[in-house]
Amino acid sequence: MTLSNERVAWFNGKFLPESQVLIPFRDRSWTGGDGCFDVTRTFNGRIFRLDEHITRLYRSLKYLRIDPGVSPAEMTRLSEEVFERNRHLLGPHEDYWVGQRISRGVDPCQDDHIDYHGPNVIVECRPIPYRQRARMFEDGIRIIVPSTRRTPPSSLTPRAKTHNYLNLIVASQEVSAIDPAAWAILLDINGNLCEGNGSNIFLVKDGQLFTPQERYVLPGISRGMVMDLAAKMGLGVREADLDLYDAYNAEEIFITSTSLCLCPAVSINGNKVGPEGQVWGPVATSLAKAYAEAVECDFVEQYLLHRENGGATRPF
Amino acid sequence: MTLSNERVAWFNGKFLPESQVLIPFRDRSWTGGDGCFDVTRTFNGRIFRLDEHITRLYRSLKYLRIDPGVSPAEMTRLSEEVFERNRHLLGPHEDYWVGQRISRGVDPCQDDHIDYHGPNVIVECRPIPYRQRARMFEDGIRIIVPSTRRTPPSSLTPRAKTHNYLNLIVASQEVSAIDPAAWAILLDINGNLCEGNGSNIFLVKDGQLFTPQERYVLPGISRGMVMDLAAKMGLGVREADLDLYDAYNAEEIFITSTSLCLCPAVSINGNKVGPEGQVWGPVATSLAKAYAEAVECDFVEQYLLHRENGGATRPF
Amino acid sequence: MTLSNERVAWFNGKFLPESQVLIPFRDRSWTGGDGCFDVTRTFNGRIFRLDEHITRLYRSLKYLRIDPGVSPAEMTRLSEEVFERNRHLLGPHEDYWVGQRISRGVDPCQDDHIDYHGPNVIVECRPIPYRQRARMFEDGIRIIVPSTRRTPPSSLTPRAKTHNYLNLIVASQEVSAIDPAAWAILLDINGNLCEGNGSNIFLVKDGQLFTPQERYVLPGISRGMVMDLAAKMGLGVREADLDLYDAYNAEEIFITSTSLCLCPAVSINGNKVGPEGQVWGPVATSLAKAYAEAVECDFVEQYLLHRENGGATRPF
Amino acid sequence: MTLSNERVAWFNGKFLPESQVLIPFRDRSWTGGDGCFDVTRTFNGRIFRLDEHITRLYRSLKYLRIDPGVSPAEMTRLSEEVFERNRHLLGPHEDYWVGQRISRGVDPCQDDHIDYHGPNVIVECRPIPYRQRARMFEDGIRIIVPSTRRTPPSSLTPRAKTHNYLNLIVASQEVSAIDPAAWAILLDINGNLCEGNGSNIFLVKDGQLFTPQERYVLPGISRGMVMDLAAKMGLGVREADLDLYDAYNAEEIFITSTSLCLCPAVSINGNKVGPEGQVWGPVATSLAKAYAEAVECDFVEQYLLHRENGGATRPF
Amino acid sequence: MTLSNERVAWFNGKFLPESQVLIPFRDRSWTGGDGCFDVTRTFNGRIFRLDEHITRLYRSLKYLRIDPGVSPAEMTRLSEEVFERNRHLLGPHEDYWVGQRISRGVDPCQDDHIDYHGPNVIVECRPIPYRQRARMFEDGIRIIVPSTRRTPPSSLTPRAKTHNYLNLIVASQEVSAIDPAAWAILLDINGNLCEGNGSNIFLVKDGQLFTPQERYVLPGISRGMVMDLAAKMGLGVREADLDLYDAYNAEEIFITSTSLCLCPAVSINGNKVGPEGQVWGPVATSLAKAYAEAVECDFVEQYLLHRENGGATRPF
Amino acid sequence: MTLSNERVAWFNGKFLPESQVLIPFRDRSWTGGDGCFDVTRTFNGRIFRLDEHITRLYRSLKYLRIDPGVSPAEMTRLSEEVFERNRHLLGPHEDYWVGQRISRGVDPCQDDHIDYHGPNVIVECRPIPYRQRARMFEDGIRIIVPSTRRTPPSSLTPRAKTHNYLNLIVASQEVSAIDPAAWAILLDINGNLCEGNGSNIFLVKDGQLFTPQERYVLPGISRGMVMDLAAKMGLGVREADLDLYDAYNAEEIFITSTSLCLCPAVSINGNKVGPEGQVWGPVATSLAKAYAEAVECDFVEQYLLHRENGGATRPF
Repeated sequence: MTLSNERVAWFNGKFLPESQVLIPFRDRSWTGGDGCFDVTRTFNGRIFRLDEHITRLYRSLKYLRIDPGVSPAEMTRLSEEVFERNRHLLGPHEDYWVGQRISRGVDPCQDDHIDYHGPNVIVECRPIPYRQRARMFEDGIRIIVPSTRRTPPSSLTPRAKTHNYLNLIVASQEVSAIDPAAWAILLDINGNLCEGNGSNIFLVKDGQLFTPQERYVLPGISRGMVMDLAAKMGLGVREADLDLYDAYNAEEIFITSTSLCLCPAVSINGNKVGPEGQVWGPVATSLAKAYAEAVECDFVEQYLLHRENGGATRPF
Repeated sequence: MTLSNERVAWFNGKFLPESQVLIPFRDRSWTGGDGCFDVTRTFNGRIFRLDEHITRLYRSLKYLRIDPGVSPAEMTRLSEEVFERNRHLLGPHEDYWVGQRISRGVDPCQDDHIDYHGPNVIVECRPIPYRQRARMFEDGIRIIVPSTRRTPPSSLTPRAKTHNYLNLIVASQEVSAIDPAAWAILLDINGNLCEGNGSNIFLVKDGQLFTPQERYVLPGISRGMVMDLAAKMGLGVREADLDLYDAYNAEEIFITSTSLCLCPAVSINGNKVGPEGQVWGPVATSLAKAYAEAVECDFVEQYLLHRENGGATRPF
Repeated sequence: MTLSNERVAWFNGKFLPESQVLIPFRDRSWTGGDGCFDVTRTFNGRIFRLDEHITRLYRSLKYLRIDPGVSPAEMTRLSEEVFERNRHLLGPHEDYWVGQRISRGVDPCQDDHIDYHGPNVIVECRPIPYRQRARMFEDGIRIIVPSTRRTPPSSLTPRAKTHNYLNLIVASQEVSAIDPAAWAILLDINGNLCEGNGSNIFLVKDGQLFTPQERYVLPGISRGMVMDLAAKMGLGVREADLDLYDAYNAEEIFITSTSLCLCPAVSINGNKVGPEGQVWGPVATSLAKAYAEAVECDFVEQYLLHRENGGATRPF
Repeated sequence: MTLSNERVAWFNGKFLPESQVLIPFRDRSWTGGDGCFDVTRTFNGRIFRLDEHITRLYRSLKYLRIDPGVSPAEMTRLSEEVFERNRHLLGPHEDYWVGQRISRGVDPCQDDHIDYHGPNVIVECRPIPYRQRARMFEDGIRIIVPSTRRTPPSSLTPRAKTHNYLNLIVASQEVSAIDPAAWAILLDINGNLCEGNGSNIFLVKDGQLFTPQERYVLPGISRGMVMDLAAKMGLGVREADLDLYDAYNAEEIFITSTSLCLCPAVSINGNKVGPEGQVWGPVATSLAKAYAEAVECDFVEQYLLHRENGGATRPF
Repeated sequence: MTLSNERVAWFNGKFLPESQVLIPFRDRSWTGGDGCFDVTRTFNGRIFRLDEHITRLYRSLKYLRIDPGVSPAEMTRLSEEVFERNRHLLGPHEDYWVGQRISRGVDPCQDDHIDYHGPNVIVECRPIPYRQRARMFEDGIRIIVPSTRRTPPSSLTPRAKTHNYLNLIVASQEVSAIDPAAWAILLDINGNLCEGNGSNIFLVKDGQLFTPQERYVLPGISRGMVMDLAAKMGLGVREADLDLYDAYNAEEIFITSTSLCLCPAVSINGNKVGPEGQVWGPVATSLAKAYAEAVECDFVEQYLLHRENGGATRPF
Repeated sequence: MTLSNERVAWFNGKFLPESQVLIPFRDRSWTGGDGCFDVTRTFNGRIFRLDEHITRLYRSLKYLRIDPGVSPAEMTRLSEEVFERNRHLLGPHEDYWVGQRISRGVDPCQDDHIDYHGPNVIVECRPIPYRQRARMFEDGIRIIVPSTRRTPPSSLTPRAKTHNYLNLIVASQEVSAIDPAAWAILLDINGNLCEGNGSNIFLVKDGQLFTPQERYVLPGISRGMVMDLAAKMGLGVREADLDLYDAYNAEEIFITSTSLCLCPAVSINGNKVGPEGQVWGPVATSLAKAYAEAVECDFVEQYLLHRENGGATRPF
């Protein structure tokens, strides 16, 4: 294979330049979000917990009753190949998101003039947007809780990673219209802290870790990673119903996500988290170090290297 | 313009053959259902209540904070032109759906290698699938109420016609996995009758019409049409909280939608609606006649003409 | 005592042929379901966990504020005697349900012309209907989740085994009207998996057992039995809030009840449970064997022997 | 027919002395409240709004999917005949409740040794218990709102008059254990005033009548009667969501039921209703008079004549 | 009476300089918000709808079961006298709030060393803070909906004007910590638009007025005033369940309160209300003019005269 | 310092006789309950778990975003000094409540004529009202569950000890209006047992302790004390969702609070707790003894010594 400077993706059986991966406009994921996906990231040339992501992807598919026509093993292999084929396009200090997306395809009842009505399956990668997010690692995240509640499981499970994101988007717009740099964390239908767009939340209280119950959130792989690391470090970890009283009194709050790994919050609803001046509290710091060791990549430094104005002091 | 036998659609400023209307796979409507649409139909060469549909479309856009870059007047004109350009492709006794779809486009933060990050706007038409639905006009619809509840307005409004359809799809799958020809009508979060995929429900009780409150459903234009006709005919019409007791004791039940117009139900959860043998009750019959007159198209006959085995006796 | 071919029951102090156990029509359990009961079964001549059933019965009575005028010890003794007196009427490979039922009796304010207004107390047995259920052990159960929600504890506790069954009956009718052989499992008021008519549900996930929390279900004695056996076998067992995502992704699902003991499900809402072709998964098989050993009765074989067309291959 | 001093009832096709109307103990209404009923009363030899009661009865039957095997017209005729046959047993100043009760009968799967598995249908009458209730007409009712909430329609409709009364019984026991003479009025699942055991509630506010919405209550025929009378008298009448703030500030509160017709409340949760000393407020008085006129029976006087110590002053 | 330059208030029977109106620290309103109040304002020397406010005050008292020991007529008279006694202290273009506050007093069980345990009753006035609010009349209000939900009526009625304000305060803090000048409007427990701290909200849609249902809000007297004016002007007015979809698509939104009377909103959750550039829409303008006429005070001008930098152009 | 027979309190920096601790009537805690507090008690001259109470106080303050201007260490010291200064005023067999109360002070926008707008901070003590409560230790508490539900955390957290008590007061009034000596325990918004005014509830079931989950209640320090003692004694202790079925079947029920420590209940909603005649069950007795030992004060005897008619037999 010859190297190009356009990334390639796998699309229904072929590797194509991304600009040729195009979707018929009657595909049910474009008209109805009728599809699902999963996404992991690389760390220094290795894909992070790909098996867990693929397992979760097939759970989403089972929930939606979509058969992608590709086995989990093949999907794993394709993900690795996509990464390999695009590796040379990574800049310095960069890593990829590596993702799989499956739509239900075009409904023959809506368009019987096209030939293919099966699922559209894509495996692709793209660089993590370090520059836009570097500031969060230096200054910490401002969390705002919007009024919109996370869709309840009795309407659509939050645990499948589907292509229906409007609940999270509408909620995030409430927040970003007021404070463009703030991060929205929604409450669930019962008024408990829930999750943000692609992100989980952790509180530290009395030196113990708390995070919302799996039933109401996407069980993030990074969330699981942090829970594992905490357990190894001897920290207590509990899934629990948490509310604003917990959040306002937390010693530390942080967010986990595939790309961010772990990033601290400095305020929630304008209420300062932890002691004045703290961005990285002791628990977040320890976990970030352990995380970096485990993935063999100092992701905090990686983000900071991409800051627009360069040269931040490393927070720890 | 020369006539082709492929339909054309308007796509971001150009009229293109439908097969050339292709969406980049990172478009946020494909990955998140982040878009909205509206759709009306034609009757014998006239577009049905296009203005009302366009007004509703711009309400959905305002809710999602998407600016399509096209004015309502222009969108109306484009819809008419799309119809005109495809008119010659209609078969006998056929009509079109005519729709507008807008996505938020590709997030620059997710893909900065492509040039265009604005909204993707499509105006298109497609023939109504008469054949698949003709039977419903002869035999009536079997309604089944699934266990999944309609997404509550506190999570995502049901009144905007968005590209997030999984709640309705997941609910419909519960039903069609058991009875493939049945029609799913969901309950809302409070346990009241709500709506189906693109369809509203009406009950007749003591000769009066009842339909779920607008707050929990997409306010269908055909629903409004039926309410107008009923009022003109001197029938009482009330938006109300309705439940299974109401449904099981209704004298008649029918469904309205853009393409179906009005189609009667013969059972709900296996409980027969109205007297034994009734498919088209007196109220549904009167309203269907008035509807047909108003749109100058006998839509019931139109459907029946497309039945696979031909030649049904007209129900009224 | 002479042997008759009519079963006898204990009724307010006397052993009578069942046909003479008749209830005044103004008894409040007939007019309002104002009573409660419990029921266990026999295995090869021994009554299963009678003490636990009697304890639960007196909890139901305490909840309803009914004093049966019979002590738990006496109720236990009567249950045993009823079984002894009817034992000779069991056919081959048959066992009895043995139950106790107590109503609040006739309200003197509603009928002061009859003499007795105390509770009506009955201890009785009847053969388990093997024939009707044998197929479920061979083909597995099809579970369907109806739209009706289990009555919430804030209205009436599901943990007392009362004579108010309409919530479960109305829900089951939704299901059986569509698929007469399917088994209804309701969701609770929060949208979690709950219970069926006289039955509990278990999921297997990652080789661990999950079952709904006791707060929302009747805590079945067979449910407890399975939890005990699983613990002894080293399987993890957790009471948890479970939903359709859990169910659709379960490796195995099974139902427990007094008479069924443990019976596997092959689908839920038409979504296949576990790998294609599986009826009895490995966990259900192990637990069924352990159950059979513990009660010294191969209940699976017992059911299969009553199949209408005879001669099924034993599933394991 | 010869006159006896035992009342007769119609039971599955025969008129029998009540003491011979006996129910097999495995009838599903005794073991599960699986049945429904309706009941009206007589006024001076005429049955009150029998047609409306029969219509409601058949709605309950339809909801429960029970076919009684008797037509509404026949049920009406039987009700009248039952009254005629028992008329001579009424004491002076007495009237009857006249009711119909239908159970689903014995499940053949539970007992295949008996012959009849069809519904058990009873038409019967019994004297209204004037003596026990006379005091309420003189002193007014003390209402207490229990903690137990009325079963929500998503679990079991409150609008069918079924044999499942435990929700109301358990709630009433909370109240009567504390104040034996008090009347329980439950809140619905949303915290609105709902209904009591067989009774509806009305508030007077700014001279207008308010009563809970039909969706959450049994729509009492006496409730309808009062609404009709109020409308004729020019009083505003509104179905509304009402709560304790409304109740505590009501000028008058009264209860309606088949037997009570209309009876005033003097307190709710110990909070005095209306001005000190008021039992019968002006609106209740006017409505009671109009009610008495309409039914040609001064029911208030009728109750007072049965007081234990005789001779109360008529309240108005 | 001699004129002083300190305002006086009526306190438990005496007129005192405000600085002498002091409350024992064990008063239950200080320790538990156990009290209620009402407040109206003056317009050019006349108290606005004092009778309605006093009526509402006694409804709050009845709900809390506090007897103030002062009759409504006397409370009215005292309110007028307080105003008269403080009138001379008003600056130019100023008006007073005139309010009544009643606490339950000191619990003898908590402090039996003081003599007086009756209610503490205060009638007082204070100038409306024009300066701080003038900007809102020129630039319009930015509404933000916080995540905290209004306390549900099943916990504490929002219709009594009590001394328990923390729900509204905690919600407002969410908003003001992010945008200090924004106005918080809460959702109710069902996710409908509800009310803000002492303020009601109105939407204009299709030229008709909508406002949340009285059941979930304090029924503001200014809210009533606007509804009356709108009715007189021939505008439709409806109490309805309203949500963010309604708000985002409203043609106009405005707030009513005792002191503001009516003030327009320019955005909600950062979503612009109405056409670009609009502060005072046509409906708000008409209603404000009619309001000003009715109270004989151009309140808009009054506010604008107090702006810090003076000299705004009158908005209409 | 000279000894006086009036207690002193610390108020904004000074120790003053209590009668001089007076609050301006526009203080936001008087007009809105806008403040919080905490309170512990003494046992024989020692303050009970003062540090835990101060920690909880500062959590309440953080939730309300009030800065008291006093550090936790100083608040602790002040609490001790207040106790020391008032110690000589304790009667025999008496102890103090020792509390801290902070209000947000007067809003400058509401009253700019006074100088001080900072928080009002009070540290004070008062004798426990033994006499009124002694009977509860001899006869046990009658618990009644009112209809009013505890305010949900999504409106106002129950875990901060704020000055907003009307929800609990309104609920307690429902109960005391019917049975003045009964103790109200509310249900939470989900219908689970929750808490009473300043008190937690415990059930004993199968010899194990159960108490409502912390999320819905104020986590009482005495509650924590009992949980600690139980754990030491080898009793199982679980936080759980509990309902009336649990309560009606509990072997024992008791209440904990700062002043009561632990006091048994004899009935709930009129349903007898435990065996006939039991006031102090074995678990309550053991825990009370262990409690008394731990605090070195036989609080049961202390209460009984204050009974009005003297000389009760000690219950254990």
